[in-house]
Amino acid sequence: MAMDNTDTKIHGGGGETRLGQDDENDNKSGMRSAEAMLRLSPVILCVAALVLMLKDSETNELASLSYSNLGAFRYLVHVNGICAGYSLVAAIIAAMPRPITMSQAWTFFFFDQVLTYLILGAAAVATQVLYLAEKGDTTITWSSACESFGGFCHKATASVVITFIAVLCYALISIISSYKLFSKYDAPLRRPDS
Amino acid sequence: MAMDNTDTKIHGGGGETRLGQDDENDNKSGMRSAEAMLRLSPVILCVAALVLMLKDSETNELASLSYSNLGAFRYLVHVNGICAGYSLVAAIIAAMPRPITMSQAWTFFFFDQVLTYLILGAAAVATQVLYLAEKGDTTITWSSACESFGGFCHKATASVVITFIAVLCYALISIISSYKLFSKYDAPLRRPDS
Repeated sequence: MAMDNTDTKIHGGGGETRLGQDDENDNKSGMRSAEAMLRLSPVILCVAALVLMLKDSETNELASLSYSNLGAFRYLVHVNGICAGYSLVAAIIAAMPRPITMSQAWTFFFFDQVLTYLILGAAAVATQVLYLAEKGDTTITWSSACESFGGFCHKATASVVITFIAVLCYALISIISSYKLFSKYDAPLRRPDS
Repeated sequence: MAMDNTDTKIHGGGGETRLGQDDENDNKSGMRSAEAMLRLSPVILCVAALVLMLKDSETNELASLSYSNLGAFRYLVHVNGICAGYSLVAAIIAAMPRPITMSQAWTFFFFDQVLTYLILGAAAVATQVLYLAEKGDTTITWSSACESFGGFCHKATASVVITFIAVLCYALISIISSYKLFSKYDAPLRRPDS
């Protein structure tokens, strides 16, 4: 019975450590799968945002507009590509059933932080361009582009919204990687056995 | 002496521990001052960027342009104001000579993360607008505004550069606050005396 196991874990002598260890291993394996899944989500999101933006072009009777005409959208495509590639590699490494080393924890922490900032920046500038394309700015005589290129703006908006969901995933991932890194610290100071 | 009290309270034991404790206290006080200084820097930077942007307006023979005509610059001013206020309060709290509680660590962590993302987003969108104002975009018939408003663009660039330095400070601060939060974890699982 499960109850008995718990009892042994709490009161028993030699069995205590082993059962505690098993629990911890189960816990770790669950956390590992959860982390790998979380790291896989940006792959799908970034690829979706990237493809949507890549295919975004519209031609009307006067002119033709494509994502590549706007620097912010080109940057969004590049960053989404980089993030998708990194997230895939990171998910594979995170799924491996072995304890991560200190240098791995630092590497994950560093890249997670940098890519979170990169993708947030890309989503922010793309939103700004969309805002200007939608509203224009009369003071500096920038006309609204979405009046003539409605379809283009819709697709671009969808791509930016998906990128923002990826930003949320990244924010969560960078919290997890900083937890995994920094919870390793302090330990050498406190534990007498190391 | 106050120092003795702390020693007796924690270990009451050998001289080795007491010396270690003294070292740790010195270390902590040094770290506290360093953190308070680091948290004060964005106050100065954000106020400088804010004032520079607020005073940024230019009138030529054809038109007049002020920061308030551009949404991105208004957003930059607001975020810089919020960050300056928060950083000042946070610096004062961080400088207080008492151990931080778990809820304080979580609060610092949360606000540091959110404000880092906010100020990074503000700096990114302002950069994008500056880029468009400098280069324009011929495909969607946006003219270069900096040709007619050179002085305006220079001041705005200075403000954005200062904001980016504040972003660097914030990135560092959010690493420190996540270290302070997460290094507290793991301890209850490992230490036998708690």
